[in-house]
Amino acid sequence: MHKLTGIGASEGIAIAKAYLLEEPVLKIEKIGAADKEAEVKRFEEAINRAKSELEQIKEHANRKLGADKAEIFAAHLLVLADPELIQPVKVKICDEGINAEAALKEIADMFVSMFESMDNEYMRERAADIRDVTKRVMAHLLGVQIPNPSMISEEMIIIAKDLTPSDTAQLNRQYVKGFVTDMGGRTSHSAIMARSMEIPAVVGTKTALAEIQDGALVILDGTDGKVIVNPDADTVREYEAKKAAHEAKKTEWAKLLHARTVSADGCHVKLAANIGTPEDVKGVLENGGEGIGLFRTEFLYMGRNQLPTEEEQFDAFKTVLEDMEEKPVVIRTLDIGGDKELPYLNLPEEMNPFLGFRAIRLCLELPDLFRTQLRALLRASVYGNLKIMFPMIATLDEFRSAKALLEEETQKLLSEGQRVAEKIELGIMVETPSAAILADQFAKEVDFFSIGTNDLIQYTMAADRMNQRVSYLYQPYSPSILRMVKMVIDAAHAEGKWAGMCGEMAGDERAIPLLLGLGLDEFSMSATSILKARSQILLLSKTEMKSLAEKALQMKTTNEVIEAVKEIFK
Amino acid sequence: MHKLTGIGASEGIAIAKAYLLEEPVLKIEKIGAADKEAEVKRFEEAINRAKSELEQIKEHANRKLGADKAEIFAAHLLVLADPELIQPVKVKICDEGINAEAALKEIADMFVSMFESMDNEYMRERAADIRDVTKRVMAHLLGVQIPNPSMISEEMIIIAKDLTPSDTAQLNRQYVKGFVTDMGGRTSHSAIMARSMEIPAVVGTKTALAEIQDGALVILDGTDGKVIVNPDADTVREYEAKKAAHEAKKTEWAKLLHARTVSADGCHVKLAANIGTPEDVKGVLENGGEGIGLFRTEFLYMGRNQLPTEEEQFDAFKTVLEDMEEKPVVIRTLDIGGDKELPYLNLPEEMNPFLGFRAIRLCLELPDLFRTQLRALLRASVYGNLKIMFPMIATLDEFRSAKALLEEETQKLLSEGQRVAEKIELGIMVETPSAAILADQFAKEVDFFSIGTNDLIQYTMAADRMNQRVSYLYQPYSPSILRMVKMVIDAAHAEGKWAGMCGEMAGDERAIPLLLGLGLDEFSMSATSILKARSQILLLSKTEMKSLAEKALQMKTTNEVIEAVKEIFK
Repeated sequence: MHKLTGIGASEGIAIAKAYLLEEPVLKIEKIGAADKEAEVKRFEEAINRAKSELEQIKEHANRKLGADKAEIFAAHLLVLADPELIQPVKVKICDEGINAEAALKEIADMFVSMFESMDNEYMRERAADIRDVTKRVMAHLLGVQIPNPSMISEEMIIIAKDLTPSDTAQLNRQYVKGFVTDMGGRTSHSAIMARSMEIPAVVGTKTALAEIQDGALVILDGTDGKVIVNPDADTVREYEAKKAAHEAKKTEWAKLLHARTVSADGCHVKLAANIGTPEDVKGVLENGGEGIGLFRTEFLYMGRNQLPTEEEQFDAFKTVLEDMEEKPVVIRTLDIGGDKELPYLNLPEEMNPFLGFRAIRLCLELPDLFRTQLRALLRASVYGNLKIMFPMIATLDEFRSAKALLEEETQKLLSEGQRVAEKIELGIMVETPSAAILADQFAKEVDFFSIGTNDLIQYTMAADRMNQRVSYLYQPYSPSILRMVKMVIDAAHAEGKWAGMCGEMAGDERAIPLLLGLGLDEFSMSATSILKARSQILLLSKTEMKSLAEKALQMKTTNEVIEAVKEIFK
Repeated sequence: MHKLTGIGASEGIAIAKAYLLEEPVLKIEKIGAADKEAEVKRFEEAINRAKSELEQIKEHANRKLGADKAEIFAAHLLVLADPELIQPVKVKICDEGINAEAALKEIADMFVSMFESMDNEYMRERAADIRDVTKRVMAHLLGVQIPNPSMISEEMIIIAKDLTPSDTAQLNRQYVKGFVTDMGGRTSHSAIMARSMEIPAVVGTKTALAEIQDGALVILDGTDGKVIVNPDADTVREYEAKKAAHEAKKTEWAKLLHARTVSADGCHVKLAANIGTPEDVKGVLENGGEGIGLFRTEFLYMGRNQLPTEEEQFDAFKTVLEDMEEKPVVIRTLDIGGDKELPYLNLPEEMNPFLGFRAIRLCLELPDLFRTQLRALLRASVYGNLKIMFPMIATLDEFRSAKALLEEETQKLLSEGQRVAEKIELGIMVETPSAAILADQFAKEVDFFSIGTNDLIQYTMAADRMNQRVSYLYQPYSPSILRMVKMVIDAAHAEGKWAGMCGEMAGDERAIPLLLGLGLDEFSMSATSILKARSQILLLSKTEMKSLAEKALQMKTTNEVIEAVKEIFK
């Protein structure tokens, strides 16, 4: 039995066998093939085995994960059936008398580098498909096993270096009981995925992949960030009890599904959810979300070769608004740039993308792109309770320009005889220090604020939260951050407006007492955090939290604030 | 006659012929050489011509620019005399029967790529030398003229794409009357150089190099950002009059050399200078600087292969302190990282270097490096009026850690019997929004603030000022920036401390009225801006500027502020 420590990224306890999701080492040597015909036959057999494996995976994915996730394997099967790839390998084996591995490698490399050099995202994705398929055939030639996480059919804890979106797309929620990743922090992709899948996760373990054996029994404590490998019987019993206690708490929380979120002294706040696609609405309703505080619209633009049409966007917005049945839905206009690229826009590379051409800056420079989205939003507005929010606003001029475009499109739609809701609230994300400091001026012109703490913290501290060397400066509890949050909330209230928060901080149990005390009106978080947050707020007195917050605002360091908040939990 | 528009980067008017500082096109073809002996001879002649040219340049540089600037040409001469480079070219010409150009190119390319691949900054600089020298020999072989800006011996205006530090090092201030560069903004290297050389400059002209012919008469107006090519006689007369008026103003300013900087209503402020090397002190004194508000210490670390010793740093600090004769000298500890790299530290590449591992963050992680600098500072402290300032502070913990290291080194030095000044003021650069917002807490522990507006603006607006697509968001007059400046100044005064500013903004004539009104104590700027700033402040009433600033703080946009300031100039 030994322990590893990481960062608790998603709450809860899992006890299951380890599944090592690891790239296999494929060592390819070029040697002569004495019997050319036998070598071609060996190649064909590898192809056939890869084919039947892929068909099995595809069928399984289709049944367990849905048709969209199965598509990637259909694309792989097409590559395997492509004579333009297969035939030259056979010719090479015969002409040059070399082994199938070397022949396949040379031909595949050629296609990959050809497709990759093309200035077209679609073709570059074909290169990735060829690489994946070649790896599978090569593994069969070399007699090496490659991991097929989509085939997992018993309870497992995934151990990986990191999980990419395509890795997680292949996972079956029924059997995957937890993640351990050596890379990443609380806001990395795998951490966010784990919370949205409601499975416990520990990230940033550094050595888990090296230290844990495939199939070893593992206990994962996503609350404390611990991983115990080959636990003894006592430890297993201890954690089974903890797990049962956690499940019991979750059952308690579930009773709050239809409860109002009211503090112990009778003040109501709104608990809303952050979502990324229309499919996420189901989870919001199942978790008692009182609205959607952030609907990110990037999914409409990513993983494709061209801009989405007005119609596609309209359909997505309409679906969410209808599914939420008059509950408020805050939709954020396109926030691309920074670490989120759209290859088909051909934007130049930037030295500091987080301080670059992104979000509203890009939308105001590419008004056609922006107007299409605004029209889709306006047309959808009659199907529910829509609020529109602009990201990365730093100056009032930017807000005014965006609002003017929206008003122009409203007039156009009305003159075309289309319907548009009479009143749509317009707000801004407060992500730049500039917007927080000028919040009193903004409050005179916007209808609401939503504080985007992930970016606000990173700019206020001048520290990239993805950069491990300075991520210690990503301090949500810093008095400087709390002061900015207060400026925004006070500014909103002074003008009779409301202020929400849609960063990671809004769902953090240590931040909630402070935010309640600062007067935050709407907390928007992962859907799966809502019930727990509600149960927490029911027990807190807003008046007491106000005096806690006032003290925190006068503190000097993050540690002083954390110590003060800890007192609440005693 | 036609006009080009750019950004006025350094004030004043120049009228002179254009000198196009442009990389020549060297087209090298590989052909056979019928007479091998003649080809070797042609190569030797090119070498000799390059040699005598370089000797001339070196001698000229030594006489006009100083021995340090001449050194680069001495290094080039050594390369030309190196048989390991020269001999293989001759062998290649004879063995392969090819022309000298092709043979030289192949051998030089081999050496360059060999040296460049070495993990050693010194060797990589040798690669640059070989490339420069090869270019010169190749130009002689091809009969192409290459520009030798160090040889300019009549009045000229340099027209270039951009100017590198090594380009500017070769320029003779006597003959170079102005710069026009197609790239760059007000804070680019060429702009800063022009201001420090006190010659007018226009940057960001985009097409000057393409549109201006070598030797054409050019009028450059560095105040308005205009370039007039082939002006007619009337225009020349008009600008000669403007130039005379500007010179007359400068003569007036020169009378203020020993004047105190006192506003029209009798309030004193301090005008200090930003410097980069001990040699800059001369310019500070000649321009009436009342102190040094920012002595950047990076020059000690850059352009070399290893860290500077304590002794080297001590000598530089002592020189500046002695030369400034008890006037205050604020020395900033190492601010490396971001866009300033030190190859020999082998730091990993970062996605967003401006939000990365730099300045105090790096110094606290590499305490040996930091302690060496602190010891040098402490030992130099007895030779003048030293104040120490830490850059990029975001949290009080960072300031406390830096201060603790300084105190440890003080104790060590004292116990070794060394002398250290009794009281050294310790301050921080306010560059992160976090430091500005927590200024009241910092003010209880630091002795002074110096607001570094270049970075503060960039983080507050979340916009990289070097990125042309978002540089419009670099808004010094934004009410959000003015509010942060006010927070810092008020916090300092509440604790009886002082606040300075050492960003570009402190020397900007449109910002000075606002900063005076906000109560700034010390304005630190390019030495060459001091007399003009003094003449401006003498005419301003601090009381009136205070009410201007109060209005500006309640404005909504940068444009409103700029319009209000313009009223002052009417």
